[in-house]
Parts: sequence; C-alpha cells; structure tokens
Amino acid sequence: MSFEILSERIAKLENPTVMGLDPKLEYIPESILAAAVEEYGETFKAAGEAIFEFNKGLIDAAAGLVPAVKPQSAFYEMYGIEGMKALDRTIAYAKEAGLYVILDVKRNDIGTTAEAYARAYIGKTELFGSQVEANPGIDCLTVNPYLGIDGIKPFVDTAAEHGKSMFILVKTSNPSSGDFQDIEFEGKTLYRRVAEKVEEWGADHIGASGYSPCGAVVGATYPKQLEELRAAMPHTFFLIPGYGAQGGAAAGIVPAFDKNGGGAIVNNSRALMCAYKKQNDPDNYKTHTKNAIIAMREDLMGAIKA
Amino acid sequence: MSFEILSERIAKLENPTVMGLDPKLEYIPESILAAAVEEYGETFKAAGEAIFEFNKGLIDAAAGLVPAVKPQSAFYEMYGIEGMKALDRTIAYAKEAGLYVILDVKRNDIGTTAEAYARAYIGKTELFGSQVEANPGIDCLTVNPYLGIDGIKPFVDTAAEHGKSMFILVKTSNPSSGDFQDIEFEGKTLYRRVAEKVEEWGADHIGASGYSPCGAVVGATYPKQLEELRAAMPHTFFLIPGYGAQGGAAAGIVPAFDKNGGGAIVNNSRALMCAYKKQNDPDNYKTHTKNAIIAMREDLMGAIKA
Repeated sequence: MSFEILSERIAKLENPTVMGLDPKLEYIPESILAAAVEEYGETFKAAGEAIFEFNKGLIDAAAGLVPAVKPQSAFYEMYGIEGMKALDRTIAYAKEAGLYVILDVKRNDIGTTAEAYARAYIGKTELFGSQVEANPGIDCLTVNPYLGIDGIKPFVDTAAEHGKSMFILVKTSNPSSGDFQDIEFEGKTLYRRVAEKVEEWGADHIGASGYSPCGAVVGATYPKQLEELRAAMPHTFFLIPGYGAQGGAAAGIVPAFDKNGGGAIVNNSRALMCAYKKQNDPDNYKTHTKNAIIAMREDLMGAIKA
Repeated sequence: MSFEILSERIAKLENPTVMGLDPKLEYIPESILAAAVEEYGETFKAAGEAIFEFNKGLIDAAAGLVPAVKPQSAFYEMYGIEGMKALDRTIAYAKEAGLYVILDVKRNDIGTTAEAYARAYIGKTELFGSQVEANPGIDCLTVNPYLGIDGIKPFVDTAAEHGKSMFILVKTSNPSSGDFQDIEFEGKTLYRRVAEKVEEWGADHIGASGYSPCGAVVGATYPKQLEELRAAMPHTFFLIPGYGAQGGAAAGIVPAFDKNGGGAIVNNSRALMCAYKKQNDPDNYKTHTKNAIIAMREDLMGAIKA
C-alpha cells in the first residue's frame, strides 16, 4: 500500500520532507530560461521546457535526500498543454529517481465524475476495452471533501484497488481556513467532523503500517489543531503544508508524528526551490537546494528527537 | 460582464439550458469511435479525436438553441494530454458557434496557487513579460469554497479584471451533499453561510443585470434549499445541476429564476448527449439531441411561465 512505501522511505532517509514543485517562471534561473527561449522563442513550449529542465535539476538535488516530491498542478495548468507535458515529464523523472509522487490537484466532484478524476490520476482509464494509465507515475493525490462521501468514495475505491493513496483537505494552512472549517456544530468544528469522516472512510483499508489510504492535509500554521487532529486520527497519514514561508515552525509540527517519528510529511516548496536566491548564485542552484534540504531535515529531526 | 452576456443569450433564445459535455466513450456513436480507431489505433489520440468529433456534432445541434455548454474537465483529464487537446478544441469550437463556455473544473487552492488556476482558465498567464491566455475561450469556471476567502479572492479579482465569472459550490445536487453542507452553526447551515459569503465576495462587482461574477452551484435535487438560497442571494446567478437523470424536476427549479425568468441556468448532460440511445439511432444523434433540447426547453419554460 502506498503510505507503506512512503513510510519506509521516510524512515530510511530519516527525513519527513516533501519537496514541492511549484515552478513559477520567476523561480527559474535566468540561464535556463534563456536557453529555452533561444530554442523555442517566447512561447508556452519554451516555458514548459524551462520548467522541466529546472525540475530535473531540483529532483537530481533531492534524490536520496527527500522521500517525495509534490508537483502543484496549477503551476503547470497555467501554461496549457505545454505545461501539462512538463508535468508528465516531471512525474516520470521523479519516479525514475526513486521519489514518491504526490500530485497536488485538490480535485473534487461526485459519482462518475469523481471516478473519472480518480482513474485519471491514481487508476486506469478504460480505453477501447483495455485499462490504461492516462497519467502514470502518481502515487497519491490531494482531494477536497466539500461534496461529502459521494465525492470521496470513488477515490477511496480506486486507491484501494491500485495501491495508491490521497490526502483529503481537513484543516488547511491559510489564514482564512477558519471561514468555514472552524465553524462549530454541536460543539464540534467542521474540520474535526471532516477528520472523523476521513478516519471512517479509510477504516476498511488500513495497511500494515497502521495507516489507511485516506490521508489528511493539516497546516503547520495551526499547531494546536494539528495536535488535536493527530489524537483524533490515529490511522491517518498527514501532509503538512505551511512550514517556513507561511510561518509554521518545526516545534509546532512535532505532535503530528507518531511515536516512531512516522505518519506525517512536511511540504516545502519555495525555500527549497529558490534556495540559490539567498546566495544570489543561480549557477549552483542544485547545491543550494541540497543544502536547504539538509538544513530542513536537521530542523525537523532535531525537533522530533528533542 | 460575463453573466450579462449569458443573461442576454438566455433571454434571446428563451432557454435557460446549459448542455453538459461529459464525453464518456460509451456515449459516443460506434461509427465515430470506429473511424478514430481506424485512423489512430486503440490509443488516447483516437479517444481524443472521437470525443472532439462527437462534441462537434453536439455543438452543431445545440447552437442557436442553447446559450451555453459546460465541458466537465474530468472526462478530458482521464485521457491525458490527448484529452486536454480535445477539451481545447471543444472550447474553441463552442466559442466559434457563439456559445457561452462554462468549464467545470471545481478548482480550489490558496494564494498564488489559486491565482495560477484563475490565470490558467479565466485570466492570462505571464509569459516572458507578455500576458497570454493559456486556455482561451472560457467565460466561466466552477470553484470549490472549502478553503475560505483566500481560495476565492484570486478568482474574483481575475474575473473582475477580465470580464469573466465563476460558479462557487454552495449546495450540490448529490445525495451526500448534506454530510458537511447541511451542518448547522448558530441555527444556520454551512451552505447558507457559504451562500452569504458568495453574496459578500461578489458585492463590489455587481453588473448592470444585477448579478455579480460570483455565481453559485445549487442542485435541482434540493428544491426547498433552492428557494431559500434564491431569497438569500439576490445578486447571485445560479448554475443548477441534477435536472433529469439525478431526479430534479422543472417545477422544483422555478423558484431559482428571477421575476423576468433570468438569473439561473439548468444543466443537462447525458439526456441531451445520449438522446439518440432512446431511439437506438446513432446515425442521427444530432437530430435527437436537438429534439431533446427542444423538449427540455418546453419543460422548463412551461414551468417558469405557469
């Protein structure tokens, strides 16, 4: 099962970090952009090529240090078909490098439409009588729960069938996540209610590691809620955004991990991708990303072991 | 503004119907599939070609009868890059035929990521200093509100800037939509709370027709809530799924419309796309779709005028 693989890699590398791949063009070193424009002009194709080239370097830097990468689909979709091609190539390259791939798409719909999304990313598409992967190499995707169980079950069934998994939004890291997620009903917040449903939805598919394929997104920026949710969701693997740039600190994340230091993975995108900018040294961006990964690992593992 | 255009077309055609374009391969007449396979083999490319060919016929049948089409992104994403190409071509063809295009993607994220989605579909992508449309021809997209205002504002700003609009999920048509949407806080349901926020988010951008760019998805399957929400959301255009196949009847939808018969549009996908199946006459699928559109218009307009 998918979170077993992730757990093993986290334990082996002693690093619960996932590197986000949110390739805005302004993140990409000038020399990579210039080479792509030289070859393809100022086109979407040049953008796609530059994104993939940059991602390749980041993946080379991260392989053997982080267990997973998380491409954010929005930053590929915004370049149209050429962006989607860059995403496909990035996923294939990351897979080849031995990385666990979490695709951040936050998809949601109901019935056969949710099933179509599940097939698209973690299952297989029926194609003239055969079953074929439309987007191969994805281990896990992110899902929005607003539509209730009709919008989740097709993902759970597909994940269980293909040994994949998902992270369902529970308590997100943004300042306004409380607009709806914090409203209380009979003394219980909406996010807590979603959390209990996530435990319930995954209950029939708990793997050897103790986690179901239904993970949860819980922001590093809400340490109290993180602690509450860890206690309420013993079989739920956590994806934790908001570390670093958004203000989440290592100490606040510690309660997310189980007693073996497992059960959660912390995302960092910009601080790892753009580490070279602090040193103003784009030519050696891989080295700076590698150093930033090592520093983040020390920060997290130091806090977990303390 | 975008809902002004839609309102005018609905009034001109006297038809508040949007034809959903959810092209599962089993919906497509055998002769179209066979021709695509003949040319491209049993490949994703053949699937994409067959989808576009089928959609072209449906759009030809619908043009001049319905004001809008709503492609459901999941059914294109499940065919990978070739599916996305078929989606692009479908949007361009629908636009050319004078149809208003609602892309059903239910996207959601926060901050710059939500902005990237907004740029991708209803705005422009910054490309080497220029502003370029990555996915041209889309008038409106669907959005999920679970993340709060951080996840909505980038869409509102982009819509306002480019004269586009969105439908935000409020009370969805599925049986389990109540799992979270119906929970009550201080005597008010979550969907009602979302509804009030939708009114608030759009308040600064109300157009001449009286509607803001922030529309709402409200299911035909919940007529009582539809009536409640119409009263609570006087400046909100409604997208109403669930008519027909899911059990929503014309009489239950009537309260969604304003006193001029405007302010809402009703989706129908399968019953229009597959009308030929009832007659077992795939060769004339366009004619059957046309007839089904006319029957639906009579059903809706009859109920509205009664």
